[in-house]
Amino acid sequence: MDKQFEQYLLTSKDHAEKILLRYIPTEQGLQKTLIEAMNYSLLAGGKRVRPVLMYEAWKIFGGTEENLIAPFMAAIEMIHTFSLVHDDLPAMDNDLYRRGRKTTHAVYGAGMATLAGDGLLNFAFETALKASGRGHDDLVIEALKVLALKAGIYGMAGGQCADIENENAEDISDEVIEFVNEHKTACMIESSLMIGGILAGADAESVKKLETAGSYLGIAFQLRDDILNKTGTEKELGKPVGSDEKKGKVNYVAVHGLEETQKKVAELSSKAISIFDELYRNSGIEFAFLSELIKQMEARKN
Amino acid sequence: MDKQFEQYLLTSKDHAEKILLRYIPTEQGLQKTLIEAMNYSLLAGGKRVRPVLMYEAWKIFGGTEENLIAPFMAAIEMIHTFSLVHDDLPAMDNDLYRRGRKTTHAVYGAGMATLAGDGLLNFAFETALKASGRGHDDLVIEALKVLALKAGIYGMAGGQCADIENENAEDISDEVIEFVNEHKTACMIESSLMIGGILAGADAESVKKLETAGSYLGIAFQLRDDILNKTGTEKELGKPVGSDEKKGKVNYVAVHGLEETQKKVAELSSKAISIFDELYRNSGIEFAFLSELIKQMEARKN
Repeated sequence: MDKQFEQYLLTSKDHAEKILLRYIPTEQGLQKTLIEAMNYSLLAGGKRVRPVLMYEAWKIFGGTEENLIAPFMAAIEMIHTFSLVHDDLPAMDNDLYRRGRKTTHAVYGAGMATLAGDGLLNFAFETALKASGRGHDDLVIEALKVLALKAGIYGMAGGQCADIENENAEDISDEVIEFVNEHKTACMIESSLMIGGILAGADAESVKKLETAGSYLGIAFQLRDDILNKTGTEKELGKPVGSDEKKGKVNYVAVHGLEETQKKVAELSSKAISIFDELYRNSGIEFAFLSELIKQMEARKN
Repeated sequence: MDKQFEQYLLTSKDHAEKILLRYIPTEQGLQKTLIEAMNYSLLAGGKRVRPVLMYEAWKIFGGTEENLIAPFMAAIEMIHTFSLVHDDLPAMDNDLYRRGRKTTHAVYGAGMATLAGDGLLNFAFETALKASGRGHDDLVIEALKVLALKAGIYGMAGGQCADIENENAEDISDEVIEFVNEHKTACMIESSLMIGGILAGADAESVKKLETAGSYLGIAFQLRDDILNKTGTEKELGKPVGSDEKKGKVNYVAVHGLEETQKKVAELSSKAISIFDELYRNSGIEFAFLSELIKQMEARKN
């Protein structure tokens, strides 16, 4: 991996982690167990892709006041984590391990894990609202709208619905696969980038470009995940190989095969890169981190 | 029941229902089942107490622009409904009936019901945000903060945690009972009243009074529920008599007995009434609906 990229990625992830730690709730009171379960899930590692993307989009558009973006960086990771906690529940995928660590319900029980997911989703909004009162409440409201829209029934939750309904379906149409990948995965990537742009004061056209690039990137990310689920090792993945396919989840690879899927990844990545390259050119920032991130993602092993 | 009160209550409930219907999502798209499950839960009847309280508090403080309060009235009912859907899940209380009707998971399965609850909580914020852009975004943000705070780990979800953890406990302290009643039930009553005041432009001191009155009212409401759960008929309750006690839920009646509990209901009600009476006096509104509502609630059968 390119040295400059590697260093930038590490620094960005570290920065996102620090910000998240600043906003996690204190484990105290008669609701202590709930907060422990939330923090157990939040601090289970992960790539922190969404806050990293948000911060970078914010920098591209010249964001300066970090207190405005920091609460949203924590919030997007809380919403992402809530979705993992609920996806892993016995009533959903019934997964006992994630990233090589016991899932939240495996440690705290299904009832408390359901509540921890609820708590995380709600606390994401509480946290994002901490960006208010700094003279940019119009931007905060616009960002809150995107945050809510892309997580909900017209975003991630909508994709999850179609995913559940098509589990073990005999014949899955490309329409359904695209809907699931776009909504369940890409929507949260889109909102990460869009909120970064919005809070830096980007105009509507630029925010639209970020949304489009996020869609390409998000779907490419999901397809690469599907490939890895078939070709990776258990150690690389932190979960059994082929576990998604075994569960009969909606999966592009199962329908189109590995080669076709990787071709699609390359095609989507190249579209996203051309948008980011243009945005970086206009920004005056020399190192096009997001373009580089996509190239690395195309070949990632975990 | 007093004629004027009865008519006012009916009109208020009808008004809240109409507003809710204006904001429920359309059942279409590949996420149609999810939206159906959400609407099934939202339209399962219920007293619509929270939006009715919100609207009345808003009127007391001279609210005029209904487009500002309407999205929050729908949002508070969505959050309340989300909490019922998740409380009824097999991983929680495993209730198959509510208000004499099958619960959401009994109809749609536990996975889809989990998702429907998530969808409702998230859609509540999407809906509340529709109050923005009307020249009062400072009030909207203040109201959103209260909405999120009182539903989350320092509100309803926190109370639910303590309730779960103390299920079937041998010895429940008054501290735990008070915490559960205050957080699980009263916090959402408080936020209903507070948001009504905030959106009408009430000052901080008045909003604080609404919060205090909401706490008294909410706890009294819960204690009356506990009494009914022991003394009501199945037909009145829409669920088996004594079902909460059988489940070993935190319950004031089980510790203090019926007489003591009703005494407490009366005491709390009288405190709430004296606050509302004062607020009505200053408002110029002649009919003190909320004071009357509490008197009726003290003796309610369902």
